[in-house]
Amino acid sequence: MEQTREEKMLLNTLAAIRPADEAAMTAARARQDSLAKPPRSLGKLEELSIRLAGMTGQVHNQVDKRRIVVFCADNGVCAEGVSATPQSVTFSQTINLTRGLTGASSLAKHFGDELRVVDVGVMCDVPCPEVIQKKVAYGTKDLLREPAMTRQEALRAIGVGIEQAVIAKMDGVELAGVGEMGIGNTTTSSAVLAALTGMEVEDVTGRGGGLTDAAFARKKQVISEALALHKPDKTDPVDVLHKVGGLDLCAMCGFFLGAAAERMPVVIDGFISAVAALCAYRLCPAARDYMIPSHASFELGYPKAMDELGLRPFLLLDMRLGEGSGCPLAFLTVEAACAVMNEMATFAQAAIDDGYLEEIRRGDAFSVGEKQV
Amino acid sequence: MEQTREEKMLLNTLAAIRPADEAAMTAARARQDSLAKPPRSLGKLEELSIRLAGMTGQVHNQVDKRRIVVFCADNGVCAEGVSATPQSVTFSQTINLTRGLTGASSLAKHFGDELRVVDVGVMCDVPCPEVIQKKVAYGTKDLLREPAMTRQEALRAIGVGIEQAVIAKMDGVELAGVGEMGIGNTTTSSAVLAALTGMEVEDVTGRGGGLTDAAFARKKQVISEALALHKPDKTDPVDVLHKVGGLDLCAMCGFFLGAAAERMPVVIDGFISAVAALCAYRLCPAARDYMIPSHASFELGYPKAMDELGLRPFLLLDMRLGEGSGCPLAFLTVEAACAVMNEMATFAQAAIDDGYLEEIRRGDAFSVGEKQV
Repeated sequence: MEQTREEKMLLNTLAAIRPADEAAMTAARARQDSLAKPPRSLGKLEELSIRLAGMTGQVHNQVDKRRIVVFCADNGVCAEGVSATPQSVTFSQTINLTRGLTGASSLAKHFGDELRVVDVGVMCDVPCPEVIQKKVAYGTKDLLREPAMTRQEALRAIGVGIEQAVIAKMDGVELAGVGEMGIGNTTTSSAVLAALTGMEVEDVTGRGGGLTDAAFARKKQVISEALALHKPDKTDPVDVLHKVGGLDLCAMCGFFLGAAAERMPVVIDGFISAVAALCAYRLCPAARDYMIPSHASFELGYPKAMDELGLRPFLLLDMRLGEGSGCPLAFLTVEAACAVMNEMATFAQAAIDDGYLEEIRRGDAFSVGEKQV
Repeated sequence: MEQTREEKMLLNTLAAIRPADEAAMTAARARQDSLAKPPRSLGKLEELSIRLAGMTGQVHNQVDKRRIVVFCADNGVCAEGVSATPQSVTFSQTINLTRGLTGASSLAKHFGDELRVVDVGVMCDVPCPEVIQKKVAYGTKDLLREPAMTRQEALRAIGVGIEQAVIAKMDGVELAGVGEMGIGNTTTSSAVLAALTGMEVEDVTGRGGGLTDAAFARKKQVISEALALHKPDKTDPVDVLHKVGGLDLCAMCGFFLGAAAERMPVVIDGFISAVAALCAYRLCPAARDYMIPSHASFELGYPKAMDELGLRPFLLLDMRLGEGSGCPLAFLTVEAACAVMNEMATFAQAAIDDGYLEEIRRGDAFSVGEKQV
C-alpha cells in the first residue's frame, strides 16, 4: 500500500528524533556540582537544568521565547452525555483563548508567553482571524457507535501538530508547551490511556469538568463499550487514537514528536496532554527526553499516565482546567533552573578570600562567644 | 517584674494581629466562582487568591513589590560536630547573599525580587555595607552545655524580625518571604520542633546539608540530650527558642508576627522557616492567616512542621537549600493567583454573544458531522 503524505511525515519525524545529548548532560551535572551549595540541594531545579542541556546540547540555556500551542477540537462522544459542560463551550473558549480571557490565556498574557490557538476540529467554523485554521474535521464521530475518525484523519491531525512544532522552532521558540480545548476530551483521553496500557477503565477515568454520579457512571460505561467495540491495537498508538481518541490528542501527540525532532523542550500540561505525550512516547521512546512535566493534575488518570511516561510533576496546584494552564508556571520553573545554572557562583567564586576569615581562624580577630555585642 | 522594651514590643505585636478578613474572602470566593472555568478547576491558584483577599481585605490584589528577608546567625552547637559544612560558611554566604551569587539570591535577582540580608548573630563582624547590622550576639552558645541564648536575647532577636516586617510594610512591600543562613540551624530547628510538639527527635531530624551516618546519629543524640537538660516549656515558644533555638529562628518568628500585624502576606521557605512559622503560630494562631507555604522541603521534619501549621506546600522541587530559595517561585505562583483573579473573564464576559451559536443551534449553520471539510 502506498504511503500517504501524512504517513511519510510521521515516519520522517520519528526517524529524526535523537535521544538526549549525554555528553552535554554530563557537563551540566559537573557544573551543578561545582556550584556553591550542598550537592543536589536545589533538587528539581538542578535536574531540569541537566535535562535541558540534554535537549539542546548546551550546558547554559535560555528560555526567554516561550509559546503555548493550544489545539481545539470537538468530540462526537458528547452526544452520549459524558460531559457536564455544553459542547458549544469548545467554540466560545477557542475564541476567548485568543483574547487573554481564559485561565491559560490570562496567565500566558500576564507572564509574556505567546499563545497560539489552533482549530484542529471544532464542530463549526470559527470566525476569528487569530485562530489558526487547521481543521481536519467538524468534530469527531461518536466513538460509542463508530471510530472517532479515520486513520487518515488521525494522521492529518498528527501532522498539524508536527507542523506547529516546526514553525515554533523556526520562530525561535526556546521553550514550548501544549494545551487543549475540547469538551469531552477527558473521555477520549481515558479511553486512549486504558487502550494503551490495558488498565481498567475505572482506574483511569475521572469526573472531568465535574459530573453527577449518574453521568460519571455513564462516562465509564461508554468508554468500556467503545473499547470492546473497536478493540484498538495497543501496540499501534495511531490505531488507538483514531478509534477512541480526539483530534486535539492527535495534534498534541504530533507536537510532542515534532518538538523532539527539533530538539525543542516542550512542557506537558495536565491529564489530556499527558496522554498525548504517552502516545508520542509509545511511537518513539526518545521523544520523552524533550518532555518536561509541570503540575500534578487533579484528574484521576493523570498519575497513571505519568507513571507510564516515567516523569514526575513538580507543581502541586490541584488544577484541572486544561488549556495549557499549567505551562506558564512550569515555564517560570524552567527559567529558574536556567538562572541557577547561569548565575550562581561556583565554590571557587564563592570563597570570601580577603584574609579576614584567616585572621579569625588565627585568633587575631576573635572567636565565638569571646566578644560581646 | 518590669517588662523590658523587647517584651513590650512582642506583646504589642501579638495584640495587633487580627484574623483574616472573612467578608473579603467571601467576596473573593464569589468572584472566583463567577470566572469562566469549571468550579475549583484552578485549585491552589483560587485558594491563594482567596486567602490573599483575607490578608489584605481586598478582592483584587497585586504583588509587584516583593522582598525576601534573610536572617543570618551562627549556632554554638556546631562545636558538637552536627554539621557537614564548616561554620565559616555562614559568614561567607552572608556576604555572597548580597552579591546575587547564592542559590536564593541568584533566583531573587533574576526574577526582580528584593533581597535583604540581616546579620542577627553571625559569629564575627561582617564587613559588608550591604548586610544590615542587627547582631544580637556573636553566635549562640552550645545548647548541649547551656541555653543557646538568654531569654532577653531571644526577645531582642524576635524584635529584629518584627522591625524588618514593619520596615518592609513601610517600604510598600506587597509580598514578603523569609530565609536564613546559619550552619547548624537544622539542628536547632529539629530541637525546637521536637520541644514544641513532643514528637520524637528521630521523627523530626534529618541529615541537613548532608551528614555521615555517625554525624547524623550524633546530631540526634545532641538534640535529645539538650532537650533532657533544658526541659523547655512547650507552652512558651520563647522559652523553647532561647534554650534550644537560634537567633535566625527567633528573628524569622518575629518577622512572621510583624507581617501578620501589618497584614502583609509572607511566604514560608523550607524546614527552618516552617519551624519559625510554627513558633509564631503558637504565640498567636491568627498569624497563620498571613502565611503562604511554598515548596515541600526534602528535610525530614518539614512535613511535620507544616502538618502542625495546617498548611500544605504547592511546589514539589525536592529542594533543601534554605536561604529563602523557595520564595521566588512561590512569589510567581502568588502572582499567577492574582492574575487569574484580576484578568480572567467571568462567565458573562466569556459568552460569545454574536448570534453565531444561536444560528448553529437552530440548524441554520450546520450540526456536528453534517458538514465535511
